[in-house]
Amino acid sequence: MSGALVQVLRSLLGDDAVLTDPEDLVRYEEGWRYGKGRALLVARPGTTAQVAATLAACHGAGVRVVPQGANTGLVGASTPDAGGGMVVLSLERLNRRLEVDPINRTAKVDGGLLLSALNEALKAHGLMFPIDLGADPSIGGMIATNTGGTRLLKYGDVRHNLLGVEVVQADGTVLDAMNQLRKNNTGLDLKQLFVGTSGVLGVITGAVLQVVPVPVQQATALVGCASGEAALLLLRSLERDLADVFTAFEVISAQALKPVFAHHEGLRNPYGAAEPPAYTALVELASTLPAAALDLPGLLEERLGAFLETEAGEAITDVFMGRAEDLWAIRHHVSESLRQEGKVLAFDISVPRSRMAAFTEAARALLASDYPFVRCCDFGHWGDGGTHLNLVWTEAGAPRPASELVPELQQRIYDLAVKDFDGSYSAEHGVGPHNQRFYEAYTPLSVRSVSGALKRHLDPEGILGTTRLD
Amino acid sequence: MSGALVQVLRSLLGDDAVLTDPEDLVRYEEGWRYGKGRALLVARPGTTAQVAATLAACHGAGVRVVPQGANTGLVGASTPDAGGGMVVLSLERLNRRLEVDPINRTAKVDGGLLLSALNEALKAHGLMFPIDLGADPSIGGMIATNTGGTRLLKYGDVRHNLLGVEVVQADGTVLDAMNQLRKNNTGLDLKQLFVGTSGVLGVITGAVLQVVPVPVQQATALVGCASGEAALLLLRSLERDLADVFTAFEVISAQALKPVFAHHEGLRNPYGAAEPPAYTALVELASTLPAAALDLPGLLEERLGAFLETEAGEAITDVFMGRAEDLWAIRHHVSESLRQEGKVLAFDISVPRSRMAAFTEAARALLASDYPFVRCCDFGHWGDGGTHLNLVWTEAGAPRPASELVPELQQRIYDLAVKDFDGSYSAEHGVGPHNQRFYEAYTPLSVRSVSGALKRHLDPEGILGTTRLD
Repeated sequence: MSGALVQVLRSLLGDDAVLTDPEDLVRYEEGWRYGKGRALLVARPGTTAQVAATLAACHGAGVRVVPQGANTGLVGASTPDAGGGMVVLSLERLNRRLEVDPINRTAKVDGGLLLSALNEALKAHGLMFPIDLGADPSIGGMIATNTGGTRLLKYGDVRHNLLGVEVVQADGTVLDAMNQLRKNNTGLDLKQLFVGTSGVLGVITGAVLQVVPVPVQQATALVGCASGEAALLLLRSLERDLADVFTAFEVISAQALKPVFAHHEGLRNPYGAAEPPAYTALVELASTLPAAALDLPGLLEERLGAFLETEAGEAITDVFMGRAEDLWAIRHHVSESLRQEGKVLAFDISVPRSRMAAFTEAARALLASDYPFVRCCDFGHWGDGGTHLNLVWTEAGAPRPASELVPELQQRIYDLAVKDFDGSYSAEHGVGPHNQRFYEAYTPLSVRSVSGALKRHLDPEGILGTTRLD
Repeated sequence: MSGALVQVLRSLLGDDAVLTDPEDLVRYEEGWRYGKGRALLVARPGTTAQVAATLAACHGAGVRVVPQGANTGLVGASTPDAGGGMVVLSLERLNRRLEVDPINRTAKVDGGLLLSALNEALKAHGLMFPIDLGADPSIGGMIATNTGGTRLLKYGDVRHNLLGVEVVQADGTVLDAMNQLRKNNTGLDLKQLFVGTSGVLGVITGAVLQVVPVPVQQATALVGCASGEAALLLLRSLERDLADVFTAFEVISAQALKPVFAHHEGLRNPYGAAEPPAYTALVELASTLPAAALDLPGLLEERLGAFLETEAGEAITDVFMGRAEDLWAIRHHVSESLRQEGKVLAFDISVPRSRMAAFTEAARALLASDYPFVRCCDFGHWGDGGTHLNLVWTEAGAPRPASELVPELQQRIYDLAVKDFDGSYSAEHGVGPHNQRFYEAYTPLSVRSVSGALKRHLDPEGILGTTRLD
């Protein structure tokens, strides 16, 4: 059967667009962080019509399919399972459509287009797609994951900047919902079903995105905070006055900060030889307003100074104004520095912002009591309620192997976040096979039931994807 | 059967909460602009549990139900049909929950709470819900309608500011999706199904809303534009630099502007005795930044001056800086002034912003050719791609009665907007019985099919609402 399908796909897509050689398959079979499976073959259609033909052929043959964009996701949703019977539907060649409408302030793109290519084309118009990520994903993958990024505080996530989609259903039917309108209140907003659902309801082949003017100036500072509560009060105070230009509020615990400087001599430690305070906030302002109209660094310095004069300001230990690239470099080296310290168990948690300090304290107390050999090296997007509560330990210091500790720690920390603090086990990475068992543990039955009804309606044979949302 | 249901509901809700006297029913039977029916009775539950009990009782009795918030909608979706067999489920007493979390920058509210009551409570925290409307709707109604408002350009619509919902299904099952998180990427975002679907998939009894800091300063100007294209170029130019503080870009045609001054001597006509230009743009900036940091009126004046110096600026005829309340008063008197001129056929259309001028010209050409007795008095939220392309004529001047002309003109204008200009027949008002036949004419079958599947899943007996989305 596989041979017949290969023939059909080659006749539909051309010989080069169907890969079957095991060596060629490797890079499609393994995910960025999690996920490693075996593919039956890789199909690389170059047009929406070819995506539709590919899906119709697989559907007809009863072969399961996993859509894959740039394969940069962090939950294993874009790689095949271990069975070797799935087709990887790579969208990497579906990247030709790129129409910028500067007056509508939108871009119409193919699903396989890379974020970097989109931003390159937008630059000529002084525009950008404001979802700012470390990786270079495809637009379709960003939609299927509903990525957030570091400027969510100002711009929102992908969902907030998505006007329209083109989706191919499992049986090859094309849904054209390429809405270019900001206002279109005409019943169910169909595109919402495909945002953040890992491609299991349909393959995103096109999108209409709202884009924004590129800021022309920035101001950044690091602010030492004696406690998590102090960081939250700083957030509230700054946001009140600076909301229009407030683009990021990242927080790094002392435990996450110290390894950065230990492993990177080139990065300047603003605290020098002194012990850093409990938390360091990275505050970023950015604006489309010219410096002649608004002195952004001056404004940030003045607002931070004013906060220091308040009662809550007593818990602020330090203020360092700095260049954006220098301060962000510290933030961006956290993950990798922690890996040099030992075994890292990464988390992607969110809680209501007002409960972030209390949640972190509760997690630390739990660890100190039951896992004293574990260091809590938390950092994250506190402005958005997100925290990477990453845990670090050494095998030598642990009483049990990681294979036992990891699932146990995941369950303890997720239970705390989801059940006790109204939080989420996946703030921005999505579900995917990596989070499948947490999805099943924490998702209300009502949501699973509606997801199941949609899955049965849109993909009755269940051929799409490896994540189960029912 | 009706008597038995009344008894059951009185025992569940209390005698006062069930109205059956025809005089008491009147105000629940008639909509704000469209919709007039007859109710079997009105049930006024005061808690989510009572809403659930009411729906379970009606569901069990096979009686249809229409949910009603403040009954301020403009498409007749909150009033019963003419049959006299429907229960009006009024949420007006479900308005007690109102919890503001200033650090999370959210408000948790009951579905029946009025927008004015929410904003009153938020004021103490320097916060507001940024959906700014002429009416005073309930929050549940705003969600079911996905209202936009005059500051959509900066803040988005209700969907953009909604974090969580509590919904009661037709059979009385309560769906608790009161998410307080900005980031929670865990599969299908269930709340999206209830946004803009007129309450036919469930009754919204609670919500978690994202709220924003109240601006501390504003700057407004009227800008005369010789053409619609000139207005669009102005929009693009201002947006490029001013995006962070750009809150509104309204446009009023000369035909819509002149009646305002003709019927309101108290409003100052900036053009005096001169003929106004083809379009007048109302530009508003607002900011949370203090005047000491940003001179907003100075900035607006400087930017408008700079635009006048460009080639596109040659089509700018006038610039009037003015007080916000004076300039908005002109805009807010348009609808009512037109009604004094004759028969008004109101539209709520959107098209891609870049096609707004071309669409309006095409509509004018169509009218001049086939309906020369009709005046096109268009105005609207051009910054959001919205236009109220209102048509005015006098019975004396028309060759045929309005009852013939209205459906014909609707179809001609909607066909033009939807088919030729990728637009929408309902930018912000929703579907409802008033737009039912346009929904059926213009909605892709794929959308209707998914909506039908959701309806069968969530309300298999089909008891909720008067709008059909399948």
